[in-house]
Amino acid sequence: LGEFDLIARYFTPGAYAPDVLLGVGDDAAVLEVPAGYRLVAAVDTIIAGIHFPIDTTAANIAYRALAVNLSDLAAMGAQPRWFTLSLCMPDANEAWIAEFARSLQELAAHYRVQLVGGDTVKGPLNISVQILGLVEADGWLTRRGAQAGDVVVVSGVPGEAAGGLQLLQSATTSVSALHQQALLERFYRPTPRVELGRKIRSLASAAMDISDGLLTDLRKLCHASSCGALLNLESLPASPALLATFGAAQAEQFALQGGDDYELLFTVAPQRWVQVQAAAADLAIICTPIGRMVAGQQIQCFRQGIPVVVQDNGYDHFANSGRSHAL
Amino acid sequence: LGEFDLIARYFTPGAYAPDVLLGVGDDAAVLEVPAGYRLVAAVDTIIAGIHFPIDTTAANIAYRALAVNLSDLAAMGAQPRWFTLSLCMPDANEAWIAEFARSLQELAAHYRVQLVGGDTVKGPLNISVQILGLVEADGWLTRRGAQAGDVVVVSGVPGEAAGGLQLLQSATTSVSALHQQALLERFYRPTPRVELGRKIRSLASAAMDISDGLLTDLRKLCHASSCGALLNLESLPASPALLATFGAAQAEQFALQGGDDYELLFTVAPQRWVQVQAAAADLAIICTPIGRMVAGQQIQCFRQGIPVVVQDNGYDHFANSGRSHAL
Repeated sequence: LGEFDLIARYFTPGAYAPDVLLGVGDDAAVLEVPAGYRLVAAVDTIIAGIHFPIDTTAANIAYRALAVNLSDLAAMGAQPRWFTLSLCMPDANEAWIAEFARSLQELAAHYRVQLVGGDTVKGPLNISVQILGLVEADGWLTRRGAQAGDVVVVSGVPGEAAGGLQLLQSATTSVSALHQQALLERFYRPTPRVELGRKIRSLASAAMDISDGLLTDLRKLCHASSCGALLNLESLPASPALLATFGAAQAEQFALQGGDDYELLFTVAPQRWVQVQAAAADLAIICTPIGRMVAGQQIQCFRQGIPVVVQDNGYDHFANSGRSHAL
Repeated sequence: LGEFDLIARYFTPGAYAPDVLLGVGDDAAVLEVPAGYRLVAAVDTIIAGIHFPIDTTAANIAYRALAVNLSDLAAMGAQPRWFTLSLCMPDANEAWIAEFARSLQELAAHYRVQLVGGDTVKGPLNISVQILGLVEADGWLTRRGAQAGDVVVVSGVPGEAAGGLQLLQSATTSVSALHQQALLERFYRPTPRVELGRKIRSLASAAMDISDGLLTDLRKLCHASSCGALLNLESLPASPALLATFGAAQAEQFALQGGDDYELLFTVAPQRWVQVQAAAADLAIICTPIGRMVAGQQIQCFRQGIPVVVQDNGYDHFANSGRSHAL
């Protein structure tokens, strides 16, 4: 057995659910999509130095590779079921692989998503996950359906991931260990909002996940829906950790422009907002109304009712060298 | 628009078939798997210096990236329908991208497989394609079903791709331009045997595609089927181009151990061989019986009925640094 055969052992799952008719080990996997469901497919690739710092642990890399894909399905209101992994790495460090595989399988088990195929390749570190899921044939979430009058909602506390990244990049002093840990955790281990996506599938008019920053991604949602939006800056969910560490101004900037949160940004007709609130409460996920969709194509920010100009720089990535573009 | 946004334009398909309910441009694609079919999924990643020489043209890289994935579905007897692309590249060279996209779409159109999502990432060249297809619920091909007595069959002329690679690596003289072109074409542009896979879906007992060399891959098929095999070396399909360029001994070695052919290796019960012959004739694809499955777990080679020992070195890749391992 070569070193790469050895590696493959770490990725051979124990048992599959009955919807995996053929899993790892053949030329392809054979999967059963039940009647009444549609297949939902996405792919996201992460590489060192662009999507995560080069000294990120194998466990955190594996977590992120799968989590960002789960997040894509969450944004569709879909239930993740299967994934394939293409793992390109410079050498076959067994300890690294073991940690990577353990973390990957742990997250997969939590969301009951099954590794059904893939390959390992020798080369510069590059982790590509293709995720497959199911959604009821009667409807799924897209970026397109928002209408003027809809409430703009964000889950969780956007900006914390960017705060965590900032801590990694610069020696910030006077930070409480607790806050620091919380922010780093948000950067390294974003929570894919799968359950929330499922709950709002039949409630929201449009949805996407925030990977490039709230303002940048809201712009995409507006564009897809042919709408504009009003944002009330004072409504943005406050992060005690961000406020204590960076102050109010930078905390707001992180919330608006920081990437990597993988929270859901969605819109909902006002009459359904109470149902969204109830669903969010059930899941113990903060969902905050931060504005309204309007006619037009502009995003206008307000602070206490006064229009303010916010520089939308997009997400200034640490690599500062471009990032990904989803097709 | 950033450079990577620009790139994305090259990968936005014009129109989709009705089974693509949502294509490129959202968080995920939504696809319809018709009743009576199973979903078949595979992923293959190729990188420069391992799977193709670094000076390979963008058109040939794109072709290979998709073709090797189509070949995986061919080996299952499945019909390719959709794919996603993760394209990691060091810079946004628009001419390179345009050529890559054109070649990719040309091959996709030929096999009626649709690009439904993906991402472009800045980093070392790495092309990962995830292919999705359909197969009738009543059966598909695996590596597992071969039985003692079955005929071992190979499509096409294995070894020619390895011959083409050899030409790229060493200045071989006295080669006819026609032969040289033919061999290079087999290396750069292997033909995915999709139609053949569909035809033998209900005839073959086991199948796989040859990516690592006939002997190495036959060993995998034997292992999966808990069988051994007898190979008649004089039955291997002869390649005029290989014979003229490298002589009989090396031609045989290429046929047995050369990789990258992406021909189908399959087994069929003797009473069904005539149906396979008819199907192959319909498609004008050479299918050659090269041996028999037997009890046990050994592969035994014969030349004119005399047992011979063949060194099975696997495929000695040009990068000589390990390759891929399929999960």
